[in-house]
Amino acid sequence: MNIDSIPTRTLHAHPERRVIDIIDQTRLPHALHWMRVAKLDEAAHAIRAMQVRGAPLIGVTAAYGLAIALTADASDAHLQQAAAVLRSTRPTAVNLHWALHRMESVLVPLAPEKRCQAAWVEAAAIAEEDVAQNAAIGRHGLGLFRQIARRQGSGPNSALNIMTHCNAGWLATVDWGTALSPVYAAYDAGLPVHVWVSETRPRNQGLLTAWELAQHGVPHTLIADNAAGILMREGKVDAVIVGADRIAANGDVANKVGTYLKALAGADNDIPFYVAAPRSTLDFACFDGAAIPIEERDGDEFRRVHGLDSRGVPSALSQLPEKETVANPAFDVTPARLVTAIITERGVCPASREGLRTLYPEVERG
Amino acid sequence: MNIDSIPTRTLHAHPERRVIDIIDQTRLPHALHWMRVAKLDEAAHAIRAMQVRGAPLIGVTAAYGLAIALTADASDAHLQQAAAVLRSTRPTAVNLHWALHRMESVLVPLAPEKRCQAAWVEAAAIAEEDVAQNAAIGRHGLGLFRQIARRQGSGPNSALNIMTHCNAGWLATVDWGTALSPVYAAYDAGLPVHVWVSETRPRNQGLLTAWELAQHGVPHTLIADNAAGILMREGKVDAVIVGADRIAANGDVANKVGTYLKALAGADNDIPFYVAAPRSTLDFACFDGAAIPIEERDGDEFRRVHGLDSRGVPSALSQLPEKETVANPAFDVTPARLVTAIITERGVCPASREGLRTLYPEVERG
Repeated sequence: MNIDSIPTRTLHAHPERRVIDIIDQTRLPHALHWMRVAKLDEAAHAIRAMQVRGAPLIGVTAAYGLAIALTADASDAHLQQAAAVLRSTRPTAVNLHWALHRMESVLVPLAPEKRCQAAWVEAAAIAEEDVAQNAAIGRHGLGLFRQIARRQGSGPNSALNIMTHCNAGWLATVDWGTALSPVYAAYDAGLPVHVWVSETRPRNQGLLTAWELAQHGVPHTLIADNAAGILMREGKVDAVIVGADRIAANGDVANKVGTYLKALAGADNDIPFYVAAPRSTLDFACFDGAAIPIEERDGDEFRRVHGLDSRGVPSALSQLPEKETVANPAFDVTPARLVTAIITERGVCPASREGLRTLYPEVERG
Repeated sequence: MNIDSIPTRTLHAHPERRVIDIIDQTRLPHALHWMRVAKLDEAAHAIRAMQVRGAPLIGVTAAYGLAIALTADASDAHLQQAAAVLRSTRPTAVNLHWALHRMESVLVPLAPEKRCQAAWVEAAAIAEEDVAQNAAIGRHGLGLFRQIARRQGSGPNSALNIMTHCNAGWLATVDWGTALSPVYAAYDAGLPVHVWVSETRPRNQGLLTAWELAQHGVPHTLIADNAAGILMREGKVDAVIVGADRIAANGDVANKVGTYLKALAGADNDIPFYVAAPRSTLDFACFDGAAIPIEERDGDEFRRVHGLDSRGVPSALSQLPEKETVANPAFDVTPARLVTAIITERGVCPASREGLRTLYPEVERG
């Protein structure tokens, strides 16, 4: 497929064939390559190797992975085993656990011969809800951006400068994205939005964000993660918005490593710091951020620099001497006190137990 | 030269031949390549292209560059012109301006035929003072590290975990380094030191630090710049120490971009944040950090990923799509309130006007 022909979804299910197609995001932005996933192990590998990534998309892919697994064998034992395989792929994004729990809640009570069909239906429902929830996040976030734009007034320097981290766009979800959904909504509504895109080492997901924004026509500028602070100090940032991999019951936010540093700089410069995430990212069973497991990934991620060589061919390079010891935590926790507000499909709330309960009164108190 | 045969100095002067030899630091850590500098333009290029880098080494190289320039023509006009060429190479590190000002102060009063010889003598004096001052910084910093180690007590987990940013080791100076001088002193004194080395995008000077530390045998771990915050929150960092490119009269510190973010995380986690720099980095004429010019470097630094290809050959890759817009501030300013202390060749002082004046009472009040 030509890289200029942009898909409308990150995942396409073919229930009649019991397979899904996903974009291999490790090859973006250099190549848009679709992959077919037809086996449980392929789904688990796609999540673990970050061919699919982003908390919401991980959840949806896991749901379909379970549906795929049941094609061959829908017994209790295999259902449990398949869920365990998928659950073990990545520890931090709670959407994975949420989606598998939801699938099991539907499937376990059914007779084995009914499970496969039901699994494809439930996975599709999760995917469609993801799209609808992210669209709602876009509308609620747009309201916040409009307020900031109104305060700034109009004029030659009235661009609304939004900073983001990692990729929380449509590539991280089924469609729209979480943090980028309000950005797209703002752009489509005619607000003069410009996005600071941090590179997001070591995996460089900022390049995915830059690619997404370019496809949509949204003005943006790539920066080193290190540059976030000086841009804020210089008054060049009006708001920061990020996604999340897990939000604890008290509003603490686990997100891509480096998020906490941006939140600190936001607080030090009186710049609002927003976290956008759907219900599936909220973990009311998690008392606070200290209870969130932080994934430690392989140090090889520093060695594999995905680039183009002088002939324009994608190439993985060893940038780092082989002997070098590397620590590679993939996420960090931003304390709720640094988060101005959380934006979900239900609206905007303070990052606190009380704030989240206002939006989700039906959740039982732990 | 074999990469295993480590030099004792980063710069060797040959006054009799009117040339200097420098290490091309853009090729480290993959190759240790010495370059001869025999012309003014070569010296200016070496500074601009970061073949030499680090505020103190930039100053010394500029001093020798001026000496080289006077070989051919030591007239007033050429002296002024050569100093202007060197001064224009990089704006932020004040050591460059300091060294050129000192050279001119010595050379201008002399008859042209005496200038060349005097220039080589003065440049050598600047270089030797750099070595002595950095050794003194090491001793003063060691005192601080000993205090931290004493508070921690001894035990299986008693490693002294020091975080640094960029490269402020011997490669950034003539010898010893600024921020790393106390680290080497601590290691040599038998303290159980371990260093967290941040990659330092976009130029990856962390790889220079890792290489230096490995040569000296100092245990260390490379991290993404983004990981600094979570390591501090998890209690894995006992102190942060960085160098500086310019310290304003009030203690505000310009240093490699990303320093401010680490200082914020240090303050948020009650971790001491030290800045180590010799006298030549102090700019008493600069009222505060807002007056420090911040260099904006070419966005191509994101595109040129210095790596090894699959055959182990150093290679510059285009990691980034050509059309991508990039902002690339090379430094940021850390406000004095986030700096626990400044370490100079004269001792340790608070990061404030009063603190700096205690160490340098002879400086006239502006």
